[in-house]
Amino acid sequence: MTFKQIWESGRAVLNGWLSVPAGFATELMARQGWDSLTVDMQHGLIEYGDAVRMLTAITTTGVIPMVRVPWFEPGIVMKSIDAGALGVICPMINSRAEAEAFVSCLRYAPRGRRSYGPIRAALIHGADYAQRANDMVTGFAMIETRAALEAIDDIVSLPELDAVYIGPSDLALSLGEAPRFDPVDSPVHDAILHILARAKHHGKRAAVHTGSAAYARKMVDAGFDLVTVGSDAAFIAQGASAAVQAFHGGT
Amino acid sequence: MTFKQIWESGRAVLNGWLSVPAGFATELMARQGWDSLTVDMQHGLIEYGDAVRMLTAITTTGVIPMVRVPWFEPGIVMKSIDAGALGVICPMINSRAEAEAFVSCLRYAPRGRRSYGPIRAALIHGADYAQRANDMVTGFAMIETRAALEAIDDIVSLPELDAVYIGPSDLALSLGEAPRFDPVDSPVHDAILHILARAKHHGKRAAVHTGSAAYARKMVDAGFDLVTVGSDAAFIAQGASAAVQAFHGGT
Amino acid sequence: MTFKQIWESGRAVLNGWLSVPAGFATELMARQGWDSLTVDMQHGLIEYGDAVRMLTAITTTGVIPMVRVPWFEPGIVMKSIDAGALGVICPMINSRAEAEAFVSCLRYAPRGRRSYGPIRAALIHGADYAQRANDMVTGFAMIETRAALEAIDDIVSLPELDAVYIGPSDLALSLGEAPRFDPVDSPVHDAILHILARAKHHGKRAAVHTGSAAYARKMVDAGFDLVTVGSDAAFIAQGASAAVQAFHGGT
Amino acid sequence: MTFKQIWESGRAVLNGWLSVPAGFATELMARQGWDSLTVDMQHGLIEYGDAVRMLTAITTTGVIPMVRVPWFEPGIVMKSIDAGALGVICPMINSRAEAEAFVSCLRYAPRGRRSYGPIRAALIHGADYAQRANDMVTGFAMIETRAALEAIDDIVSLPELDAVYIGPSDLALSLGEAPRFDPVDSPVHDAILHILARAKHHGKRAAVHTGSAAYARKMVDAGFDLVTVGSDAAFIAQGASAAVQAFHGGT
Amino acid sequence: MTFKQIWESGRAVLNGWLSVPAGFATELMARQGWDSLTVDMQHGLIEYGDAVRMLTAITTTGVIPMVRVPWFEPGIVMKSIDAGALGVICPMINSRAEAEAFVSCLRYAPRGRRSYGPIRAALIHGADYAQRANDMVTGFAMIETRAALEAIDDIVSLPELDAVYIGPSDLALSLGEAPRFDPVDSPVHDAILHILARAKHHGKRAAVHTGSAAYARKMVDAGFDLVTVGSDAAFIAQGASAAVQAFHGGT
Amino acid sequence: MTFKQIWESGRAVLNGWLSVPAGFATELMARQGWDSLTVDMQHGLIEYGDAVRMLTAITTTGVIPMVRVPWFEPGIVMKSIDAGALGVICPMINSRAEAEAFVSCLRYAPRGRRSYGPIRAALIHGADYAQRANDMVTGFAMIETRAALEAIDDIVSLPELDAVYIGPSDLALSLGEAPRFDPVDSPVHDAILHILARAKHHGKRAAVHTGSAAYARKMVDAGFDLVTVGSDAAFIAQGASAAVQAFHGGT
Repeated sequence: MTFKQIWESGRAVLNGWLSVPAGFATELMARQGWDSLTVDMQHGLIEYGDAVRMLTAITTTGVIPMVRVPWFEPGIVMKSIDAGALGVICPMINSRAEAEAFVSCLRYAPRGRRSYGPIRAALIHGADYAQRANDMVTGFAMIETRAALEAIDDIVSLPELDAVYIGPSDLALSLGEAPRFDPVDSPVHDAILHILARAKHHGKRAAVHTGSAAYARKMVDAGFDLVTVGSDAAFIAQGASAAVQAFHGGT
Repeated sequence: MTFKQIWESGRAVLNGWLSVPAGFATELMARQGWDSLTVDMQHGLIEYGDAVRMLTAITTTGVIPMVRVPWFEPGIVMKSIDAGALGVICPMINSRAEAEAFVSCLRYAPRGRRSYGPIRAALIHGADYAQRANDMVTGFAMIETRAALEAIDDIVSLPELDAVYIGPSDLALSLGEAPRFDPVDSPVHDAILHILARAKHHGKRAAVHTGSAAYARKMVDAGFDLVTVGSDAAFIAQGASAAVQAFHGGT
Repeated sequence: MTFKQIWESGRAVLNGWLSVPAGFATELMARQGWDSLTVDMQHGLIEYGDAVRMLTAITTTGVIPMVRVPWFEPGIVMKSIDAGALGVICPMINSRAEAEAFVSCLRYAPRGRRSYGPIRAALIHGADYAQRANDMVTGFAMIETRAALEAIDDIVSLPELDAVYIGPSDLALSLGEAPRFDPVDSPVHDAILHILARAKHHGKRAAVHTGSAAYARKMVDAGFDLVTVGSDAAFIAQGASAAVQAFHGGT
Repeated sequence: MTFKQIWESGRAVLNGWLSVPAGFATELMARQGWDSLTVDMQHGLIEYGDAVRMLTAITTTGVIPMVRVPWFEPGIVMKSIDAGALGVICPMINSRAEAEAFVSCLRYAPRGRRSYGPIRAALIHGADYAQRANDMVTGFAMIETRAALEAIDDIVSLPELDAVYIGPSDLALSLGEAPRFDPVDSPVHDAILHILARAKHHGKRAAVHTGSAAYARKMVDAGFDLVTVGSDAAFIAQGASAAVQAFHGGT
Repeated sequence: MTFKQIWESGRAVLNGWLSVPAGFATELMARQGWDSLTVDMQHGLIEYGDAVRMLTAITTTGVIPMVRVPWFEPGIVMKSIDAGALGVICPMINSRAEAEAFVSCLRYAPRGRRSYGPIRAALIHGADYAQRANDMVTGFAMIETRAALEAIDDIVSLPELDAVYIGPSDLALSLGEAPRFDPVDSPVHDAILHILARAKHHGKRAAVHTGSAAYARKMVDAGFDLVTVGSDAAFIAQGASAAVQAFHGGT
Repeated sequence: MTFKQIWESGRAVLNGWLSVPAGFATELMARQGWDSLTVDMQHGLIEYGDAVRMLTAITTTGVIPMVRVPWFEPGIVMKSIDAGALGVICPMINSRAEAEAFVSCLRYAPRGRRSYGPIRAALIHGADYAQRANDMVTGFAMIETRAALEAIDDIVSLPELDAVYIGPSDLALSLGEAPRFDPVDSPVHDAILHILARAKHHGKRAAVHTGSAAYARKMVDAGFDLVTVGSDAAFIAQGASAAVQAFHGGT
């Protein structure tokens, strides 16, 4: 299954988030009904070796494997898709040039500059992976600064770009607000809808990071193609905290 | 802090459970208010190297570190306390001889046969650890079979034994019932209260594994000295499942 | 898929062998057509944490996961099946008592003494795993000494024992010959066929470790239910050696 | 505790150095009286996953955690502080532009471009970490080339820069001398004092890597705010070599 | 032993390839007769910590250790040689400027900008490593795009560059052909020979990645100084596939 | 090189001790002049996977690799020598039966019950390893209790036993003294010399753990064949503590 296949079927993708570097935590997540799972190599405590083990854990199911890279750098982008990721989220894309530098790493020549060597991808996605890879892999450029907002049409009009991914916390910081999930009635909220509209105008997919299932549902209703809810780390902290409080009579 | 110090202060210990082999998952757990955390080397997917990393993560807080060993074997019992665990839960203690074999591993001569070399324990618990270790380390013998039930007085009257730990699932299986947490009105429930009573009669501490904060609270009210609620693995699975269902309107 | 399901379909199992502690090596093996793969924790350089990662790699395919434990010890036997192994090979079973001690670890009460907590097994094999586990898990007692040979009827008549696994190298050493794979016209060869016959007489499955596909095929024709051929480590050494020699004109 | 708090108390920081990728080596170091410890991801044999485990080991004490990144690259700088480092040493800062690129990664908007997601930092440094992070995190620009020396006023006058860190070995190489610790009466020694003077002139902190406690003490007396002495790797090599020589009568 | 010493002895280097992140797989490879082994951090599933363990495994023999870095970035190039690699292959060098940026990382001042701190290199290559390193370490610039082909004379005339390494798959993609090893009678084949000729014209060494010992031998006869054949991953897949097929009568 | 070869050359073995689970720490130790190094799986924080990496690090030199197992258990003893250890120290051997159970694990039939599969040992010690292994591998039974002292003649007269290893700390505890290295004028000191005398009387080698090079030298002069001095962990702690104190003027 790929992102494009789900989207072509007419529905949005429910994405889960992985910040804990342990294959077993990933397997627990992968059996709960997510469409895709993202290994967060940016803010999660995860290095490439962990990411490979987590992508392997995802492959025990049919869930779509995705990564967020720490920052734009061609080496880690290409290593991630060679390891089997079918989606890549790239932080802090602030201009068309940065978007182009990013997406060119996802495509083999002549459409890009991805180096050939899909060592695990070809093993798990089929012998014809190399022929199909340019269309199987989906790149998400993160729109999360005022600069990106101002360049939004330049960015989303880039032909090889598949999708944008909105990071509301950084966007809030950049717009002078406190970092926060699930904004309503605020400049950040307006910016989110504006990015969505411009992406749609140029025929691109749009994704957003959320802090609750309810907000995620609302964003899908607003037109988003992918929504992220929760994370393994958050579920541990919230579940433990709730149990401790319940024991002490706090619930 | 040690188990004995909490007990002497007149309250019960709230213990959390660790099945995910990742220091960060442990740190997330360790900041939620538990009195102690147990690294489960029996049913968790955890080997000794993982356990050391998890015990290190626990030491970033004041939470009491505990392990459950995979099975009684002197090497792993002693390695766990040398690594700094202040409590050891040992599965399947079915006779006084087994209890004695276990607890002798927790005490230096002449009270036992623990080999000297508290490499991390002395580093983190203080230069006088070796002098105090025999009283700082608490051993929990798991009572979880019909055989153990029948030998309960022999077991709990063993002077060096500190405490018993009841595993309701195995006890249920052994008594011919389905494995289950939080039994009520059943032979397993009766057995749990009987073990508690016999332990108390011999001046020993009693602990029980539970499936909910409410049942745990009830067990403390019944006289238990330590109750375990939840686990990192369960919090991930439950939190993720709830989020996915909420998104799909299932809540 | 389980061993029993393949056997009931009337064919033998082709088993591959894993000695390299790397999930990617396991994934490479798992996509080559084996029915089952065995993580060798005895002579391979593999500890439990590696084994979990390798079992996870196997689960990315439909190949049946098996382990060989280092030696009989209840802790590691039960940890392996809790981690999802559907077969366990136990070295050096030399008597009915040893066979009984081993197989009792594979069965929940009342058929055995397996402790309850199938943490990964229940996740990957289905919510009803615990109900079905006693019949899903297959135990192989290694017959590899003169003592075992002499006690063969005592061993294979044990009701809960599923199968025997013949280690020709150790059997050869024990019978005073040099350790060697694929014996013909020798006391070891005779012993292999004798063990096979006694196992079949008692309705048990029989497996044998071989050094070549041709010998393995012959053993299946002789009646064996599972044959092991090659290993990841051997394929690396043989492939590399052949390439180096071919380059230097040695082929 | 932060660097700034120690400095405001009027004393210099004694920093230790970590090159061995093992949490236990770090814990041994962390209990010997250092004010801060630096995980060297540049010349040490340490990748990000190791660094996280070592930062966790440091957190078992009150020692200030610091990292040296391999080279300036925004991803690894931000991942290090998200993991809880309170100081970052960045190699080879040779111009004001490079200094600015570096320090902007340490500050949230509007003071910089650090991406929001302090996953471990917020866990261990308190719920208000994000509000305080811009002032808690200290950036050290390494001054270690002739080019940097020539641009020293441009660099140290950068407002957001906290401190410089002098690498005497590279500075020596760049000035045409042999790499060496603890220079006296040499152009490198003069350069070190010149850098110190220019940093102080612009109100910035200055740090220097040394090879002995005596030289470190001298540098503190000269006005340095942080001095590094020794490393886990050096202590192993020196201690072992001394023991072997003593055994053979060499002492 | 270094690359230069083999070349000065008048023969070509036979290089093996490592994609499996396991020290034991590396040790198996290292005992089969290769002159050098390359840890592939680009397309292999290998991070820096794995690379260190694999370089350690190589050091158990006299085989020359080499790495391929994921992409040009000074940090990973320098970390690799600090860890003891005597050769570095850098992907996608498309201009003289890129070649210069790369090779400057391999040389201490004044010949380059390598930072001083050869932590493992000095341990294993001798106390005089730092004096000899500029000549011991060999840099291979990958020539694998049409752009590189067009700039070939600019690149190979760079004085500090030691050698070029041809990646036939990427070169084929860049020239509009399917990625493939061992080309004959094709533009890629012509390009390979052209690169070889220009390298030789400028007194530089030339290397090529091949898919078979026969083609590698042919390339040595054509004048190449280093040829790569096979990989640990390929030997596992090919060996396992052949065994399975042989068992099923497919051979 | 083996222990026996050194002893036959007429000199004692200087053994170093490894408690830090990091290959690099081991490589640092291995280059300082020790005859042998022991990976301590008992009191060190080391699991089997760490031990394999440390044994690999030792193999980069000619130093003799040894392990101390956590406790007597056939699986870990055999795994250690399959991984290439040429010496095994086994804790707490208190009777001839225990000694026999231990040493039988070190010998192939008919001299013992070691299972065949020297996967790394045969790779690194030569193709004829299996033929020579019974004489290459040296077993050290730890004598460290009053019970062992009382059974000393029974133990050291066991033909297959190679050597005893005295643990002064545990011996002191068992004799009612405080655990301490380097005893003089005490019952422990007398016991050490008595064990030495009985071992020599039966033609066996004797080893002792010491806390200083001076005491070690004295023990060699007294007739000991192997002495252990220091450890990687101790060198870190002592070196760091000395540097910190020197900085603060404490020296």
